[in-house]
Amino acid sequence: MSTTLDPQVAARLKRTDDGLVAAVVQAHDTGEVLMLGWMSDEALARTLSTGRATYWSRSRQELWVKGETSGHRQWVREVRLDCDGDALLVRVEQEGPACHTGERTCFDADLLPLAADPA
Amino acid sequence: MSTTLDPQVAARLKRTDDGLVAAVVQAHDTGEVLMLGWMSDEALARTLSTGRATYWSRSRQELWVKGETSGHRQWVREVRLDCDGDALLVRVEQEGPACHTGERTCFDADLLPLAADPA
Repeated sequence: MSTTLDPQVAARLKRTDDGLVAAVVQAHDTGEVLMLGWMSDEALARTLSTGRATYWSRSRQELWVKGETSGHRQWVREVRLDCDGDALLVRVEQEGPACHTGERTCFDADLLPLAADPA
Repeated sequence: MSTTLDPQVAARLKRTDDGLVAAVVQAHDTGEVLMLGWMSDEALARTLSTGRATYWSRSRQELWVKGETSGHRQWVREVRLDCDGDALLVRVEQEGPACHTGERTCFDADLLPLAADPA
């Protein structure tokens, strides 16, 4: 396992002030957007080298391998970087629900009201 | 058009230090992840009330209606908030390519190397 990111990849990242890149996680089979995570350079290096999605927890301030405690692992099929280097698209095979609430995705519960008649 | 966010929605947002929430943008028909944008409270209020995806440009430090100059507009079908309030999923009908480079999505160009044999 590599904990150091390839310098050529590292040079392309545009990080937030706290050194993170947003990672959009998508089910490779259904196309569902499962969650949004955050990756530090080390989290991305571990994700690429182990094939297990690994994030930086902003609340706990630590690396976090998805499913390590819940068993709801993410097996990485593909990682893409966006055009300006500030977002990753991680396509995964998701075991069980992606959300810690037990929902299939983290976006299942909360639909915001859209104006019916845009003005 | 409303430029002020519903206080009940505003209370559920968990913003970055610069007051933004990440917005994952997905094509409502194909399920493709098109781009990642950032929304301030006002950008979200405008998005919900006009049905046109509106972001905060971190580089230009201004509100930005997607497609205003390029014509590559996004018509919003659905906006969802994630379980911990720090990400939005915006499902849109995309006119033309979503990426300013002319690619269909902002994630088309750059596939990162994944270890073939995870260790």
